[in-house]
Amino acid sequence: MIDFNTIGRNARKISSELGNYTKDKKNRILKCMADTLIDEKKFILQENLIDIRLAKKNGIENALLDRLILDEKRIQAMAEGLKEVASLPDPVGRIESKIERPNGLIIEKISVPLGVIGIIYEARPNVTVDTSALCFKAGNAIILRGGSRAINSNRALVRVLKKALEKENVPSEAIQLIDDISKTSVIELMKMRDYIDLLIPRGGSSLIKTTIENSLIPVIETGVGNCHVFIDDSADLEMAKNIIINAKTSRPSVCNAAETLLISDNIASKYLASILSSLEESGVEIRVCSKIKEVFPKYKLATDEDWYTEYLDYIISVKIVKDVKEAIEHINKYGTKHSEAIVTENQQNAKKFSQEIDAAAIYINASTRFTDGHEFGMGAEIGISTQKLHARGPMGLEELTSYKYVIYGDGQIR
Amino acid sequence: MIDFNTIGRNARKISSELGNYTKDKKNRILKCMADTLIDEKKFILQENLIDIRLAKKNGIENALLDRLILDEKRIQAMAEGLKEVASLPDPVGRIESKIERPNGLIIEKISVPLGVIGIIYEARPNVTVDTSALCFKAGNAIILRGGSRAINSNRALVRVLKKALEKENVPSEAIQLIDDISKTSVIELMKMRDYIDLLIPRGGSSLIKTTIENSLIPVIETGVGNCHVFIDDSADLEMAKNIIINAKTSRPSVCNAAETLLISDNIASKYLASILSSLEESGVEIRVCSKIKEVFPKYKLATDEDWYTEYLDYIISVKIVKDVKEAIEHINKYGTKHSEAIVTENQQNAKKFSQEIDAAAIYINASTRFTDGHEFGMGAEIGISTQKLHARGPMGLEELTSYKYVIYGDGQIR
Repeated sequence: MIDFNTIGRNARKISSELGNYTKDKKNRILKCMADTLIDEKKFILQENLIDIRLAKKNGIENALLDRLILDEKRIQAMAEGLKEVASLPDPVGRIESKIERPNGLIIEKISVPLGVIGIIYEARPNVTVDTSALCFKAGNAIILRGGSRAINSNRALVRVLKKALEKENVPSEAIQLIDDISKTSVIELMKMRDYIDLLIPRGGSSLIKTTIENSLIPVIETGVGNCHVFIDDSADLEMAKNIIINAKTSRPSVCNAAETLLISDNIASKYLASILSSLEESGVEIRVCSKIKEVFPKYKLATDEDWYTEYLDYIISVKIVKDVKEAIEHINKYGTKHSEAIVTENQQNAKKFSQEIDAAAIYINASTRFTDGHEFGMGAEIGISTQKLHARGPMGLEELTSYKYVIYGDGQIR
Repeated sequence: MIDFNTIGRNARKISSELGNYTKDKKNRILKCMADTLIDEKKFILQENLIDIRLAKKNGIENALLDRLILDEKRIQAMAEGLKEVASLPDPVGRIESKIERPNGLIIEKISVPLGVIGIIYEARPNVTVDTSALCFKAGNAIILRGGSRAINSNRALVRVLKKALEKENVPSEAIQLIDDISKTSVIELMKMRDYIDLLIPRGGSSLIKTTIENSLIPVIETGVGNCHVFIDDSADLEMAKNIIINAKTSRPSVCNAAETLLISDNIASKYLASILSSLEESGVEIRVCSKIKEVFPKYKLATDEDWYTEYLDYIISVKIVKDVKEAIEHINKYGTKHSEAIVTENQQNAKKFSQEIDAAAIYINASTRFTDGHEFGMGAEIGISTQKLHARGPMGLEELTSYKYVIYGDGQIR
């Protein structure tokens, strides 16, 4: 039986220590983690093999199997990731503002770690290492609850990370794994409000939903992206075609891929045939609104559910809209506030689109696929927030911090 | 029967309009609200009287009655508050950062309203006006659920605010009151995740607890303050005495008042008698640790529960601690992460205290009573956050916003 209280207490205790580590100490430890990962790769691969064999026996889908598999290259990539996090600026201890009040009080606003962060994720073992690195660098203790399919891989990875911590005399409770793959352990974790400051669910919409419904801990919703590309009537056709093909097909399984194409009625008759055939050539299944269906009866008619669906696959729904206004209405109704693009040469429409759409990232003449911590220059990301509280869009190191006010006086009373 | 879906949909709809109002328009409307409040004071006072009579009939405590009562002066103060909010800088549309990436993408991070904010509060009618003003200025629609005791006052105030909105051709759904004082209406409100972006409970710890346990909407915890003053062995006695008297007695009913005094063992024998007698002279009941009890048997012995208690009254618990380390441990164990003060001439101890205590505001040689939006130069506040996500400490206009990324390209694909 897992003792959740002990895990929580230990995390809380070590978190107050981690928050005061110097950046040099943190970076040294991150590099030590990278080295230890490489040193222990045999052990990691051997444990990963247990998960793979079990998954195959249970008839896992190929896409999921691919996420689960580790190999030398992937371990190398995790080690590089650790070193990259070490090379990023320290997000803790920045003076965000400093003011002097008329009464002489000096008020400093200083970035501090959030404290203890819980991560609930599915069967990608690299998440274990990536999130541990980011949380550690931001001075937070981390409690991990990975998917059951990757339990042996996760155990091995956490054991290796802890080995590095011990080498550097850091209490190993800085990184803890909930070693219980029952569903109740997830729910239990979500109740640990006294010990966990932030819970980040990383996974599909059903995980997010369960977390929101059960968590007593503040949650950041991540990663559900029903993203749109809207081709305005002033769009450059070549640019529009490149953007929708890229947004849909460069990596359909990720949250910043496009799921719906909206096209202005004024140019549909001129452009649509060419765009649809390009999409088809790229292997995309096309589902269309009734207006398009009339002209192109060969395509499947999209249902209302299609407009709500994040396919994460080579499928796209396509709709003719009257103008930018109708595009905005459609997106604000069906979208998930993730990434939305307009292709236009009309600055007023671009402005209207960027102002009136409620989403983390609005693209004017670029692919939705850029919503990503690396692409935004953050160096790394722990997820992409689709809510508005605390952090929105890609979350890097800064988004894993909070702040405190330190007020210096010489006896002021009120 | 209240139709929560209609309320939510209306709020969501108007919120997308409010977010694009210019600052001049918002400020003009706020001033119109102030004027209308003054014009309608007779009506407001008459409705307030209904609440007062009912409260008296039901035998309300004096402190609560005082909060409920409106008079000309208080209406004037609300109107001044509205004008003050109008005078503050617009928190919406600020470019928080702007970068150009190597691929030519320009990424702007722009402050935007949160959207729709729900406020759950108790029997202070001024909260209706103050929070409406702040939310409106930050471009948010607001849904109010005030306490049952103030329902007639709140109805009147919201009607007057809506009158001002109508004068200025703003849809009156910018400010909505849940006109249902049943407990189920609060719970219903907490489930409106599709329509509300942030829920702020303003009130005692039981309201906060109920909200956390039931809300599906992101919540910001506010206002529970079990604050401490620690007198270090190097403290200036006069300063220490002034600070603890001020922190405890200047307004005991508020969250930034001190509840516990910690004093270093090294100086307790020299200073404590004088400090305790000053507190007693100010009418404060004193509860002490066993060590103090030995020397001053006349005081009541504090229980473990005392150390956890936010008295909000003329009561203080007093404990001798070995040193700054023990003070920090005590505060991190019993505190509520609100405001904590050290009185010391020792810079190292000050630094240790400010770094190792996990609280929104740490005071070095000043009273805890300064944790307040006005005192922090924010102009106004909607509450004091004691959690670490999104906002910590006093929350002003900026804390009522989120941000979005707007990315300008010329056809970039990934």
